[in-house]
Amino acid sequence: MKKYNFNAGPCILPREVIENTAKQILDFNGIGLSLAEISHRSKNFQPVIDEASALVKELLDVPESYSVLFLGGGASLEFHMIPMNFLVKKAGYLNTGVWAKKAIKEAKMLGDVVEVASSADDNYTYIPKGYEVPTDLDYLHITTNNTIYGTELHNDPDVPVRLIGDMSSDFLSRPVDVAKYDCIYGGAQKNLSMAGVTFVIVKDDALGKVDRQIPTMLDYRTHVDKGSMFNTPPVVPIYTALENLRWVKAQGGVEAMAKIAKERADLLYGEIDRNKLFRGTVKNEEDRSYMNICFVLNDEYNDLQQEFFDFATARGMVGIKGHRSVGGFRASCYNAQTIEGVQALVDTMKEFEAQH
Amino acid sequence: MKKYNFNAGPCILPREVIENTAKQILDFNGIGLSLAEISHRSKNFQPVIDEASALVKELLDVPESYSVLFLGGGASLEFHMIPMNFLVKKAGYLNTGVWAKKAIKEAKMLGDVVEVASSADDNYTYIPKGYEVPTDLDYLHITTNNTIYGTELHNDPDVPVRLIGDMSSDFLSRPVDVAKYDCIYGGAQKNLSMAGVTFVIVKDDALGKVDRQIPTMLDYRTHVDKGSMFNTPPVVPIYTALENLRWVKAQGGVEAMAKIAKERADLLYGEIDRNKLFRGTVKNEEDRSYMNICFVLNDEYNDLQQEFFDFATARGMVGIKGHRSVGGFRASCYNAQTIEGVQALVDTMKEFEAQH
Repeated sequence: MKKYNFNAGPCILPREVIENTAKQILDFNGIGLSLAEISHRSKNFQPVIDEASALVKELLDVPESYSVLFLGGGASLEFHMIPMNFLVKKAGYLNTGVWAKKAIKEAKMLGDVVEVASSADDNYTYIPKGYEVPTDLDYLHITTNNTIYGTELHNDPDVPVRLIGDMSSDFLSRPVDVAKYDCIYGGAQKNLSMAGVTFVIVKDDALGKVDRQIPTMLDYRTHVDKGSMFNTPPVVPIYTALENLRWVKAQGGVEAMAKIAKERADLLYGEIDRNKLFRGTVKNEEDRSYMNICFVLNDEYNDLQQEFFDFATARGMVGIKGHRSVGGFRASCYNAQTIEGVQALVDTMKEFEAQH
Repeated sequence: MKKYNFNAGPCILPREVIENTAKQILDFNGIGLSLAEISHRSKNFQPVIDEASALVKELLDVPESYSVLFLGGGASLEFHMIPMNFLVKKAGYLNTGVWAKKAIKEAKMLGDVVEVASSADDNYTYIPKGYEVPTDLDYLHITTNNTIYGTELHNDPDVPVRLIGDMSSDFLSRPVDVAKYDCIYGGAQKNLSMAGVTFVIVKDDALGKVDRQIPTMLDYRTHVDKGSMFNTPPVVPIYTALENLRWVKAQGGVEAMAKIAKERADLLYGEIDRNKLFRGTVKNEEDRSYMNICFVLNDEYNDLQQEFFDFATARGMVGIKGHRSVGGFRASCYNAQTIEGVQALVDTMKEFEAQH
């Protein structure tokens, strides 16, 4: 039976990315050694990290004055590194969910933090709007997509301060106005690669403004200066990122990704809105995520939860259980998700409706 | 032509470890999804991390009161995390080379550091002995193997304080008296796995003794409490570690690894000592590393450097160039290095000698 992978992350990757990674692990570029066995300092690996970095710059039209980094530790480590490198006196955070809250917690250890707005009052089912941003902030931190609640900022906000964006779960899914940001970062295991590498796009001259002593590995300048090779980088996850970046480019770049994302989302939200059994969990239509599509059973059908889960599982759907803090279902539709996959889920929902 | 991989790291891994990793990346346990696509929270991955952790405990006979962690960020991040978690007032460091120096630098940001002994006076060509260890240290940090200089501590020192060991490059190559340590850590990309995961063995009740506020991701308690799954762990590198741990066990465990390591080292050092062209770089025989075997041309043959390198490369030797701070040659002989590989290098040295 064909499996349709709706995992929230690690998640679906293009089949050719997976196959090429496996192939290079067996024999890297025909040199008789595995990708897992080559030196990161060798002439074999340098072109990999160079091309991956150049492709991020090309695909997102990153201005000259930015560096692209591939690090270890995950976005959760970045929650600490961001204030470490950018928080001089006061930072603003937009609280749109658990990940934003975790970022806020780490920032508070290092300076003043203003929560410019929050949707905690309604379990993060919307993206706050119309909030005021103090002009004396060192930066405003946003989480552009909230995997748990299925909300997304579809545009880069116009604010009077520099932005920092956690784009862990919608990176490469739309064009981004990088010039508005001092830093964009995220874990790779959604739209970029397998788990094990963190991407960072950082404006070079935004660094070095803080007075505190920064531990070497937590200082972005260390990694900018050494081209992500101060220490041994995660070689295989970076290679998989390269394969995926090539794939995104071959599909037509982030503009094409955005178009397909909208098509997938329209198809699935359309069914959620039409089907008598289900409803979406996000309050405002414009805040609905194209990456993580959350829905629950309508109250009168709530006892069908496990039945629908089993019904969908039997039809090849994987990873559609909603996060425990939202309940219901979540279909993650990252870049590699196909219309065919979404259609299979829609058909499953229709079939289930017909039986009830 | 068969390649013999003497890379210092990332380095040679057992062929079956590589092949099994590639196979699982194509289809994990026959479930129809790639290892790179499965959720780390799923029933598919939990057994992987559980078995990997249990095998580390079994192979190194780790006492009950220790936790085994698999983290991101590399050993270089641990240089900061160690003092963050263990340095209350004063820590001791044994300075045996560049990696020790980097660890010392990070520790100095957080407290008093005593360099109990150093071999910097002779470019780290020996392991200091007979030094005194103050009894009021929070810990003594040692680097058990020094990849660049080819020196190794073949035993766990008897000192009046707790040990912390960077075992990045000789992990799993010999039995270790874990009970002497509060923490053992290292990058995986030598004897454990591909690059992208860091192993940590930590004594649970040695944690929580410092007063400072520790950022969440830098606090070992975070990872102990969540079984290395506070955030998304590097799934594929951890899987490769599991495959390699199974391989070590199948070979007869760390006792067998130690025996083979000695055989490989005896074979290669024997040739270095016999061959009129070469000499070892390490001062005392007992300090010679079994993992990284460093040698140079004798002074009268020094102009043959490039010629020998090309001669060996033409015979399939990969990664034998010495580190720039030592020069000459370095043959790294980690667990997966075969006697056949070492013999091929020895034969190459003999053949080259015969021509000069």
